[in-house]
This record gives sequence, C-alpha cells and structure tokens, in this order.
Amino acid sequence: MKSYQDMSRNELLREKNRLESQFEEVKAKGLKLDMSRGKPSAAQLDLSMGMMDVLSSETVLKGVQGLDCRNYGVLDGIIEAKQLLADMTEVPVDNIIIFGNSSLNIMFDTVAHAYSHGVCGAKPWCKYDTPVKFLCPVPGYDRHFAITEYFGIEMINIPMNEDGPDMDKVEELVNNDPLVKGIWCVPKYSNPDGIVYSDEVVKRFANLNPAAEDFRIYWDNAYSIHHLYFDDKAEILEILHECKKAGHPDMVYKFCSTSKVSFPGSGIAAMGTSKTNIADIKQQMTVQTIGHDKVNQLRHVKFFKDIDGMMAHMEKHADILRPKFEAVLDTLEAELGELGVGSWTKPKGGYFISFYALEGCAKAIVEKAKEAGVVMTGAGATYPYHNDPQDSNIRIAPSFPTLEEMTQAAKIFALSVKIVSADKILETK
Amino acid sequence: MKSYQDMSRNELLREKNRLESQFEEVKAKGLKLDMSRGKPSAAQLDLSMGMMDVLSSETVLKGVQGLDCRNYGVLDGIIEAKQLLADMTEVPVDNIIIFGNSSLNIMFDTVAHAYSHGVCGAKPWCKYDTPVKFLCPVPGYDRHFAITEYFGIEMINIPMNEDGPDMDKVEELVNNDPLVKGIWCVPKYSNPDGIVYSDEVVKRFANLNPAAEDFRIYWDNAYSIHHLYFDDKAEILEILHECKKAGHPDMVYKFCSTSKVSFPGSGIAAMGTSKTNIADIKQQMTVQTIGHDKVNQLRHVKFFKDIDGMMAHMEKHADILRPKFEAVLDTLEAELGELGVGSWTKPKGGYFISFYALEGCAKAIVEKAKEAGVVMTGAGATYPYHNDPQDSNIRIAPSFPTLEEMTQAAKIFALSVKIVSADKILETK
Repeated sequence: MKSYQDMSRNELLREKNRLESQFEEVKAKGLKLDMSRGKPSAAQLDLSMGMMDVLSSETVLKGVQGLDCRNYGVLDGIIEAKQLLADMTEVPVDNIIIFGNSSLNIMFDTVAHAYSHGVCGAKPWCKYDTPVKFLCPVPGYDRHFAITEYFGIEMINIPMNEDGPDMDKVEELVNNDPLVKGIWCVPKYSNPDGIVYSDEVVKRFANLNPAAEDFRIYWDNAYSIHHLYFDDKAEILEILHECKKAGHPDMVYKFCSTSKVSFPGSGIAAMGTSKTNIADIKQQMTVQTIGHDKVNQLRHVKFFKDIDGMMAHMEKHADILRPKFEAVLDTLEAELGELGVGSWTKPKGGYFISFYALEGCAKAIVEKAKEAGVVMTGAGATYPYHNDPQDSNIRIAPSFPTLEEMTQAAKIFALSVKIVSADKILETK
Repeated sequence: MKSYQDMSRNELLREKNRLESQFEEVKAKGLKLDMSRGKPSAAQLDLSMGMMDVLSSETVLKGVQGLDCRNYGVLDGIIEAKQLLADMTEVPVDNIIIFGNSSLNIMFDTVAHAYSHGVCGAKPWCKYDTPVKFLCPVPGYDRHFAITEYFGIEMINIPMNEDGPDMDKVEELVNNDPLVKGIWCVPKYSNPDGIVYSDEVVKRFANLNPAAEDFRIYWDNAYSIHHLYFDDKAEILEILHECKKAGHPDMVYKFCSTSKVSFPGSGIAAMGTSKTNIADIKQQMTVQTIGHDKVNQLRHVKFFKDIDGMMAHMEKHADILRPKFEAVLDTLEAELGELGVGSWTKPKGGYFISFYALEGCAKAIVEKAKEAGVVMTGAGATYPYHNDPQDSNIRIAPSFPTLEEMTQAAKIFALSVKIVSADKILETK
C-alpha cells in the first residue's frame, strides 16, 4: 500500500471514506477498552496470590533480628526487606530505606521535604522568591510532572535521545543554573518511550557539576526488573556507585517499589541513596511516622525469599505481558507500517509503547479512539503542563486488557490514527 | 505511714537510707523493663492473628463494589473500609477518607499541606513572616508537638482541666489571634492524663469563632474505643456534628486508626472531616499517591466485619490491659498513697497513667528508675519543646510489659519517686 502522503487527493478521499465506514461499524459495537494506565492485568495479579498464604495465624511474625513485626518500631524497614529491595535496586543494604506502599509517595514526600525544609540543610525551596526548576526529559511520566507542578516548580523540557536525555542540554542547565534543583529520570525502559540509558549517559549524569548544592537526580527505577525478554535484558550502570566514583555521592535518590511485582497499592517501596541523604530524610521520617507496614514487608520476603525468587517471578509477568506488546506492535506494523502516518517504539521492557503521530494529530486521535470506546492516556499527559508542543505523542499501555481485547483495541487505535492522519494530509492536498 | 513532709529531718533521713539500700538490691538484679511507649503487648497482638487467615490465595480479593483490591485505583479507600472506620469515628461514611497505616502520618501530611499550600486556599503557612501558632493542651502527646515543632510552628501551652482544655484560654486565643491556626486534641482518654472531654467543652470547641479562616481543630481520636471498662464507657459528643450545628462545618479534622485495634504499623488509618476539607485534601492526595493498601483494608473488614465485631475485639484488649493498669494503680496507692510525694490519674481507657511528681522531681525520677533498668518516657516529653515548666509530669505506659513485669516496674518507679522526693524535701528541712 502507498503512503498517505504519496496518494492523490482522490485516492486519499476514497481511503478515508472506507475508513469512516469501518469506524462506524466498530463504533456500533459499543466496546469499552482501556489502554490508558500501566496497570497489571488480573492474570498478572494472580501470580502473586501465593502471598496471601505465606503468613497465617500460626506464623511467628518475627523478623530475622527477633523483632515482632506486628508492633510499633523500626523506622526504615526490617533488615530482610531491606536486603531484598537493595538487591532489586542494586545498592548496598546500608543505602536503603523501606517506606510504605508507593514509590510515588516517596517521591512526593522527598520533594515536599525539599520544599518545606530544604535538602540536607540547604535553603527550603518555599523560601525562594522565584520558583526553582526541574528538568523533565520528554516525553515522560505524568505523575512526576504533577508533583513538581503541585509545588510550583518550573519544569523545563529536555529532549530524549535513543539512549537517554540530551546530556548536552542537561549539563548546560544543571552546571550553570543554581535554580535547577532536580531532574526526573526513568532510566530503564522509560515511561513512555521504553528507552534504556546508555553507559555514557549514566556516566555523564554522575559527572554533573551542579551549580546548586541541593541538586539531586530523581532516579525512578520503576522498571528495573520489568523485562519483556529475559534472554535480552537491559542492564544499566548503577548510578549511586557511579556518583560515588565521580565524587558526588549524595547527588541521587533512587526509587523503586514492588507495585508491578506483587500488588499495586499493596506492595512495598524503597529509596536507595547515600547515608548523608538517608540521615537527612530520616529527620523528617521520624516526625512523620513511627514506621511502615512491617507485616507486609515480612510477607514480601517470605513470598519472594530473595532476588532470585523475585526474578523468576518477573519472568512469569513477562510471559503474560510479552504477547500483548507483540500484538500491539504487530497490529501497528500491519495497519500502519507503510502509510507514513506515525512511528512507535519497540520496547524490551517496562509498561508502554510510545506512539508518535503526525504533528498536531495526537489529541484528535485519542478523541477518535474514545468515540469507539477505547480509552487512551490523554494526549499531552506525557509532557509537563500537559503541553506536547508537537501534539504528537500518545502513550499506549498494553498491560491491562486481555490479549484479545488488546488486539481489538490496537486495531481501533490504528484506525483512529489513519482517519485523523488522512484528514491532516488532505488539508495540504 | 506519715507523709514525708510531716516527718522530721531525722525520720526522713532514716527512711531515705532504707530506700537507698532497697534500691541497691533492685539495681543488682539488672532488670530491663520498658514503660516508655504506648505499645500493645504480645498478648494483645495475638488477638488479631486471625487477621492473617481471612485472606488466602483462594479468596477473591474484590470489594463489595466489584473492585479488584489487588490493583491500582481508589484514592480514598474501599467503601466497606470507609464504613467500618466511619462507624469507629462516629461520622457519616461520606465524611471519611482512608489513608495508609498511620494516623500520625495523616496528621503530619495535613500540617505539611497547610504549610506548603494552605488550608482550603488560604495563605500557605510557609509564606508568613512570623510563625503561625498552635495551641497545645498540656500535658499532651509528644509526637503531636514534634510535628508542629518540625514546621517551626509556635506552640502555646493550654492547661488541662478535669474535663478538657481550659476553654477560656482557648477561646481567648483562637477568637482573637489570626496566627492561631490549630489546636491538638486527644478528646477521649487523653494522652497522657486519660481525661475525657465534657459535653460543655466539646460544645465550646464547636462554637469557637476563629480569627483565622484556616483555623482547624486537630482532633486525634486515638482512643475512641479503647475503653478499660466496657460497663463504664466514656462517650463524648461528636465534634463534626457539633461543629456543623454551630455553623462551622469545616473547623475540624478527626483522626483515627486501628493501630491499637489490630496491629500497630499494619493497621489502617482515616480522617473524618467535612466534604469541603475532603476536596481540599484530595487535591494533594491525588498527586501524592495512586492509592493506599486496599488489600489490607479488605483484610480488616473481613476480620472485624463491622463495628460490633470491632467493639467485641476491643473488650478482649481491655481484659488484657485492665489488670496492668490496676496493678500500677494499686502499687502507686500502696507505695505512695500516704506519702504526699505525688498524684496520679486513674483513667478508664486509653494507654497511659499520668503521674505528677513534686515540682522539680520528674527528670530525676526518670533518671533514677533508669538506673534500676526501668525505661520511662523522658520527663518533659509530654510538653512542647520537651519543657515541662514544673518538671513534674511523668507518663506511665502500662501496656507493653507482662503483668508481672509491670508490677515489678511500678514498684521500682515508686521507689524512685520516694528517693527523689525524700531528697527534695530534705533540702527544705
């Protein structure tokens, strides 16, 4: 098939008529499909149901250090949970704090702490007359941007290259502007592009020379073990270690959770960072809480046992996720491959496929898909202030629907892309 | 026996020598007893072990509304958990938000929200040139004071009467000073005095006319169902309802948790407040988290079933706690009853007995008890800035040790009181 650009006006009009009648047929079905959020499917959640059996009324709920996990105490997590999440995060156990059920909540609290009290004794961000700034590699994760927006932090878009953020731009801003206090990163299988940071990018991060003493890299290791292909796993350099080698041991906060390992909302979350940062964070934590849910920490340790157990578990997730990703990719290729109406990423892990429509088409495509009952992440959501300057990026989340639903949804999405793109191209013919 | 004050110098010196040799004997035993924190005992925690069995890998983890509790979603709690905690908090279910594992964390976040963003659109407290103020009925809960201290909020001591805070003083300050933004209250079985607010006090709270639009009552319902005598339960007026009647529906945040009902750290916590306040809080919450632990919410509902189940459970707690409280009270009465060296409260619920030593003796008593291996809450901890102007109040927490240990600890405490008091009185003879 010809690309739409190569078609004559009449050819394209005929194609569009054909698509519209297809669309009406699909719309008549009254489908309800959701490709909007990176939610595990029921089949994935079933993988962790054994977790409901590892503790019973007969279990002695004590940690290896003899501590009664049912009672108050232990601000930063039981040692065996620390070990498990340290291994997941690839940092020494002394560099880990266990928090509650959500790494997003840790990130929020970390920014809130910097805002109200300052990072390691630096001036609190709320005391600045002009807003402080965060760098935001784009497209990125909407909930990161929501945190910085909530605190009135100015967000600066950083273009993404194939191996991570544009480091020339990052260095220029971080090393010269003392108002630049942070950067949001999802270094492995990035949200939404699925990009894996190269060794060079990680090293350049570690070798930043920030103008601000309280600049930190907010390293959201959300998909560290969330491979789709266990025989072709992405490995990235460990940023804490690299920062230490480069003489900037305190420059990074590393976040992780088991939300997409065990149960979203009922998992455990952690931060990996330097001991200086841990001491700073504990000053707040000790006022904020007596401690997090140690019974759930113990439950996770009893279920996974160790990092090997966790990795074996992740392979089962991959077996469920992989066919869905492949179905979407196959559909996009089959439906759009030769039409020149967009491009998309082919991630090897994580939770998303990132679609780039013709400029100015993303919003209309999402709107169109919705008409036929397919909910996508709102166009623009992957950019600070919901503003995608090209109106091009659409995040596809293949995880939640069943394989069958997913295939159906992907076809409707592709159909929506074709219709909106044909319209767009017709404007110029 | 004569009171120490009535003894001659020689009599008191002889008494003191006798006490000192008793003390050396006790000290030689090398005991390790902890009466410092309001922690449930192992026997109490055992009461909730059935909670480990209510969910298994065979359970369908869906809420009554069909929601998969294992997945993301539901910011403010599953409906059946809301109902349970609404009943516990005595507010309508529409006035409840379920949070994570800790009411302390809710209180911290509520103050943090007011500090960074302001209450319901009012000026954020961080933007004031002079610190805002909180009223602190004293003695009170050290962790409340730690939160306000952490945010640089000026704390003003309010004396406690037998039926609650001195409302003349509260009214004078709240109704005239726009910098007064809040008051910490533990209205039932207060920490540490075990005081129950009278109807008159609650009504006067509801009828405050704050100079500050963002003044709120921080009503920590920590011991709402934590009676020691279920045939003589304290009931207090419901503050949300009273505030509404008085035309101040938004004036109160009510906090509760199951920390001392199920498991500390592994319970669920909630806030009861007006819909306007809920909307304000949700603006932050939706940025901070995707949702709290719904599996644990479901676990609590399945275990307690309803408020009646929860109350029956609390009777079992009372059966374990009551003898310990009575042992301490009996020991204090037997050892100190006639000596005129202190007074103490006789609470009908909650977790503490409050001891008032002779002025200037509290620190020395805590120090002395520690010498013999008995850890008490630090003297002064029950006051803002750890400053008890009389150096008199000591919080006794009888819950954690066994009955035997408790009796032993209470005797050592009484002995410490006698020695320090004798010293004090000898100074004047």
